[in-house]
Amino acid sequence: MTTSINYQQLKSPHLIIIGGGFAGIELVKQLSGKPIKVTLIDKNNYHTFQPLLYQVASGGLGPDAIAYPLRKLIGRIPNIAFRMAKVEEIQLENQLVRTDIGDFSYDYLCIASGSATNFFGNKELQENSMELKSIPQALDLRSKILQEFEKAVSGTESGKLERILNFVVVGGGPTGVETAGALAEIRKHVLPSDYTELDKTLMQVHLVEASERVLAAMSENSSQKAKEFLEQLGVKVHLKTAVQSYDGQLLKLSDGRTMETNTLIWAAGVKGEVPAGIEASNLGRGNRILVNGFNQINGYENAFAVGDVAFMSADEKYPNGHPMVAPVAVQQASLFAKNLQRKLAGQDLVAFRYFDKGSMATVGRHKAVLESFGIKMQGYLAWLGWMFLHLMLLVGYRNRLVVFVNWLWNYLSYQRAIRLITRPYTGKQSKGK
Amino acid sequence: MTTSINYQQLKSPHLIIIGGGFAGIELVKQLSGKPIKVTLIDKNNYHTFQPLLYQVASGGLGPDAIAYPLRKLIGRIPNIAFRMAKVEEIQLENQLVRTDIGDFSYDYLCIASGSATNFFGNKELQENSMELKSIPQALDLRSKILQEFEKAVSGTESGKLERILNFVVVGGGPTGVETAGALAEIRKHVLPSDYTELDKTLMQVHLVEASERVLAAMSENSSQKAKEFLEQLGVKVHLKTAVQSYDGQLLKLSDGRTMETNTLIWAAGVKGEVPAGIEASNLGRGNRILVNGFNQINGYENAFAVGDVAFMSADEKYPNGHPMVAPVAVQQASLFAKNLQRKLAGQDLVAFRYFDKGSMATVGRHKAVLESFGIKMQGYLAWLGWMFLHLMLLVGYRNRLVVFVNWLWNYLSYQRAIRLITRPYTGKQSKGK
Repeated sequence: MTTSINYQQLKSPHLIIIGGGFAGIELVKQLSGKPIKVTLIDKNNYHTFQPLLYQVASGGLGPDAIAYPLRKLIGRIPNIAFRMAKVEEIQLENQLVRTDIGDFSYDYLCIASGSATNFFGNKELQENSMELKSIPQALDLRSKILQEFEKAVSGTESGKLERILNFVVVGGGPTGVETAGALAEIRKHVLPSDYTELDKTLMQVHLVEASERVLAAMSENSSQKAKEFLEQLGVKVHLKTAVQSYDGQLLKLSDGRTMETNTLIWAAGVKGEVPAGIEASNLGRGNRILVNGFNQINGYENAFAVGDVAFMSADEKYPNGHPMVAPVAVQQASLFAKNLQRKLAGQDLVAFRYFDKGSMATVGRHKAVLESFGIKMQGYLAWLGWMFLHLMLLVGYRNRLVVFVNWLWNYLSYQRAIRLITRPYTGKQSKGK
Repeated sequence: MTTSINYQQLKSPHLIIIGGGFAGIELVKQLSGKPIKVTLIDKNNYHTFQPLLYQVASGGLGPDAIAYPLRKLIGRIPNIAFRMAKVEEIQLENQLVRTDIGDFSYDYLCIASGSATNFFGNKELQENSMELKSIPQALDLRSKILQEFEKAVSGTESGKLERILNFVVVGGGPTGVETAGALAEIRKHVLPSDYTELDKTLMQVHLVEASERVLAAMSENSSQKAKEFLEQLGVKVHLKTAVQSYDGQLLKLSDGRTMETNTLIWAAGVKGEVPAGIEASNLGRGNRILVNGFNQINGYENAFAVGDVAFMSADEKYPNGHPMVAPVAVQQASLFAKNLQRKLAGQDLVAFRYFDKGSMATVGRHKAVLESFGIKMQGYLAWLGWMFLHLMLLVGYRNRLVVFVNWLWNYLSYQRAIRLITRPYTGKQSKGK
């Protein structure tokens, strides 16, 4: 490729993208080769394919299967550079991004920093429960689960074996459902082969959901089926039940019941991961940045927010904001890339309209629910569809190949092969996104 | 499998194996189904295939490709159990192993705890250099290398770019040679694609070796060829050169020269990883446990040591002890398994004789040296042979498949795909084995 475009030589316009998630990498693809100087900033040097984090946590995949090096993506793209840095503050007035490796001036800004786990201000809960939003967190959870099994075998922890082998997942969205399903399959297939000394019936998996059904974003029919799948695998599903408190051992539920567990996985809420410097007046529900129909931040022509971190009420069908899912992020990023070029060409911006292609969740082997364009699938076909779509959505052929090989192996062997405590979990989980 | 043998019901004889390395897993295989109660203790829940650690460090393989869960190996073997525990002390007199999860009594003991990096008492060196003996260490090194590249791009560290991009490997054994070769290939193939902003000629790779040649265990011819391969890849090889001091930035060499580097990889020595409780009088050269020709510890009929941690001078061909390599460990473990059964049957023990099948090392793509049974191969064929043998030596079909897929991918793409800083290296490497 011969080109006159070069990041070092380009001076303006300079776009800074904060975050290499689904929106960030979509922007990289769309702006590749364009006469815009682009700097992508992320605190990690890789993109995380979050939908499969629960498979890392449950030992089905290694982190390298779902993480994609951002430099591999950006590599030789002439107009785009990557900087691994932690954003410390954004100064919208000064068009400045302050980071731990220095300050960056911009002409245009796109905040695509995604979301973090939401504990709704409950500090005790936050300190004692496990999150599942990043690779280190997924590895921590994998270690924690396996360490609990080891504790159960060695009999070193005083107290009931039931507490050690009791796993509680809170939140009936896709992450919660899929994590609970994976834990149930571990009980079914891994415990009997690896821990012959343990009575596998002592292991319990609970799924706690505050609303009336799991997978509330799907149809009632799919919710019902997902619940049935979970119960077939032996997961105890508690609907209309909220968590009142959890001190690391004792879990108190809203209906007065209590449960003892060493492991509570919190998948019951997310909130915008907003960089410092954005005024509170610009934040809406779920700590998300208020944007207009063009994803512009209130009062700033040149500052945008897209994806999970953005709250848009201008899309008629979604007056309460869009769901915090990957397709919204990708579509907003794609439109922003076009709008930026329209703006530079003096054209009017186009307003965002979310096009919902459907949703899906897998519970376990041959068990999934999928809804798309009016089609509803459940069971085996939905499960194949789920796998196919996730393979297509993964970034890069290598990761697709590695995930495929691992899935095939796990399917044939009924195993989750990566039962490694690479770094023991010591009680302090990597917090934040 | 129907069997009357059961770990819980078996009372004696009880064998404790310390360490799930090459010797440990060979013992598990050999003693599977035998009327002996066996407890394998390791502080990790996995076996580490150490010969490929350098490929994890250089981003060619993920940890799950070379680590094998010990419970997957032991699984349903009726007479063997695994305990994840740190050995705190061995009391040979009392036939007791004290660990962080409790005490274990034994009738027979086999210490197979392997080796640790030897800094020959140089504390400063130990604190400032990187080791490569365990999975966490390999991941730390991977992070460190990538973080140095990021530093070089961001220009945040004061001082010369040369120091940041200068990598020094100390020790010309297989680990040192292979690591230096991998770094040189990163310069050749990864730097130009991922770090287009950097001048790749600024990156230097040095290999420092105190003796007259690299791969001293091989023939002079192979040593010479390996050196040529390294130099073809651009590695600067310094023979007859020792490290005098290294403070984390300034490296002083024995010939008075100095070099600046942020990254020194120490592969210049190993020593026995001896559990506490073994008297100093029982330790020989390289901190290894003195054993007789049957691997028995001096003065104890029922306590054995095998592999790297054992020092045997009774094998006529090896009056100065055996090399600290996997084949010795496997052969000693295999003989010990037979000798234990002979002992239990009242038969005489058989003395150990090491059968050297040869050795090999790979420098880079199409570049390896291999010697076996008088055959000497160099270059392409040796490289194919090296890969084939390592695939065969890996534990478990899944790991073989995953390594094969990754190798094929890396070969075709000229990449090391796993360029992930999963956990940033913060300056404190996991020490010890």
